[in-house]
Amino acid sequence: MDVFEAIKGRRSCRKFSPEPIAEDELNLILEAATWAPSAANNQPWEFIVVSSGDIKQKIFREAQERKQELFEKSKWKWLDRYQVGFVLEAPIILAVVGDPKKAGADQFLEGRGESYAHGCVAAIQNILLSAHALGLGSLWFTVFDKRALREILKIEEGKDPIALICLGKAAADPLKTPRVAVKDKVRYLK
Amino acid sequence: MDVFEAIKGRRSCRKFSPEPIAEDELNLILEAATWAPSAANNQPWEFIVVSSGDIKQKIFREAQERKQELFEKSKWKWLDRYQVGFVLEAPIILAVVGDPKKAGADQFLEGRGESYAHGCVAAIQNILLSAHALGLGSLWFTVFDKRALREILKIEEGKDPIALICLGKAAADPLKTPRVAVKDKVRYLK
Repeated sequence: MDVFEAIKGRRSCRKFSPEPIAEDELNLILEAATWAPSAANNQPWEFIVVSSGDIKQKIFREAQERKQELFEKSKWKWLDRYQVGFVLEAPIILAVVGDPKKAGADQFLEGRGESYAHGCVAAIQNILLSAHALGLGSLWFTVFDKRALREILKIEEGKDPIALICLGKAAADPLKTPRVAVKDKVRYLK
Repeated sequence: MDVFEAIKGRRSCRKFSPEPIAEDELNLILEAATWAPSAANNQPWEFIVVSSGDIKQKIFREAQERKQELFEKSKWKWLDRYQVGFVLEAPIILAVVGDPKKAGADQFLEGRGESYAHGCVAAIQNILLSAHALGLGSLWFTVFDKRALREILKIEEGKDPIALICLGKAAADPLKTPRVAVKDKVRYLK
């Protein structure tokens, strides 16, 4: 699939079919992730491929609790209606974990050191685009407490779980997410 | 260009030709940026297209000073050799600026609120991939003090300059940046 077509066509999937993902497709997605750019080519990412039903249940319970906490703190009504069953339905949850020790030179600047996380996010965007090109739906999910997720996924203390990416065949049309026009987001300094 | 080809083929460009970027190509890149995903579709990004030689000079001086500071703090020898002339050579520097007020529900979790920056990084990866698909080189640059960059680019106090993306025709082959094998970056929880 053309890169512009993938960029414009990819949408967040909220409902997954249980159909498993072919191993070669998953490998293509993981390889695409590792081709992301990173500060000093430090490749600050690790990936955990979750297909265990037990672990998905633990992620689901954590997501339910955090969603409730967020609703109580924010009073945002959509959070009360927001259903997180997709973490149970998706055949694969791909956890993207960053290593803060693999930040670039930015770690020596005051208040910085975020480049390891940003490299991981570039890898996430590669995951989303390559999944879409393979006809798979994807969801970028971050409603979890990082300590709780470390425990569930056996991630060592110093590492930073950046996101959970749910992957699978879409079982419903994705939400429409229109964009603000480019001209309202750009300023020129000529 | 195929999305996998773009993901695997894009490399960081360190030397740019002064040849300007066609307006329609720049617009395609900016549009690709705005199709990035973001928490609650908040579209937390703004873009500043810098072609002014005066402003590039100011960015260059800031980059030189920070590079020197980083070398003194880190003692990393490559920083002493690292030349930042690309910010003067590149016909366009695209500043990607995030709005922390446009974080998603994560802002209500302890120590979080980073989703606005992560949305901007997804937009950056779209910029890098779409530039490559158009035959342009790109460089993701973050060696600047955020306060200094806000002043140079007239960015309001509450906004967060995430990165400067240098764009233009490559004037030299990109650096080779090999990757660690996928198997050494992945763990399976079945």
